Amino acid sequence: MTSRLHHIGLAVLDLDEAVAYYERHHGLVVTSEHTSAADGVREVLLEAGGCQVQLLQPTSDESPVGRFLARRGPGLHHLAFEVDDVDEELARLAGAGAQLVDRQARAGTGGLRIAFVHPSGAMGVLTELVQRSPT
Amino acid sequence: MTSRLHHIGLAVLDLDEAVAYYERHHGLVVTSEHTSAADGVREVLLEAGGCQVQLLQPTSDESPVGRFLARRGPGLHHLAFEVDDVDEELARLAGAGAQLVDRQARAGTGGLRIAFVHPSGAMGVLTELVQRSPT
Repeated sequence: MTSRLHHIGLAVLDLDEAVAYYERHHGLVVTSEHTSAADGVREVLLEAGGCQVQLLQPTSDESPVGRFLARRGPGLHHLAFEVDDVDEELARLAGAGAQLVDRQARAGTGGLRIAFVHPSGAMGVLTELVQRSPT
Repeated sequence: MTSRLHHIGLAVLDLDEAVAYYERHHGLVVTSEHTSAADGVREVLLEAGGCQVQLLQPTSDESPVGRFLARRGPGLHHLAFEVDDVDEELARLAGAGAQLVDRQARAGTGGLRIAFVHPSGAMGVLTELVQRSPT
């Protein structure tokens, strides 16, 4: 098992403002935009040289990112690692005592399969596992 | 100006435990270890495929990372972007109204020149600029 950092997720109050900030001040380039009804977010991915920055604006105050913003304000939200097999990794982490947010992988945006691991037992970091769908 | 994500910094309570966690569960590989008296941290960098994960354990409760841990607990701490010229970027950001933690670049560990930008006006993210020293 070797994983690589896929993206770093940021919770933002205003997606357009945040995109403009990272384009202007860091020269990042938007690669995709999605709205996820399941997660209650609008998201934009920007290429940042090997890894990506993901900007997340909630579509509802009751969504996980909406509640995060209310509690902690905008900023760093989660880390995502790309893995070869998200189901295998989830089973291994559960066996090691990790607390899972998603007990089974689910469809993410952009054709990825994803699952979140709770910060408890993951160094305080909300951790996403992402797997490119089999082609 | 184009910058790339250089590393994501995590504040941890126990550096050895955190290193073991990322080695075991994400297959990351330690590339360097340093102690920074100036910043009051022990730090370990791990390669994560293009970007790096930096684990930071404070050597003092009064250090910036020590105060962060006391206030927010372990977890995501800062984002670092590699830039060609940190002084030029600092001047540009200051001109754009950014609030700087370091008004001038300073020596970081591993031969880097670094400066921090305050989360205010930076999307709520403590942002580090890093420049490889001229060779």
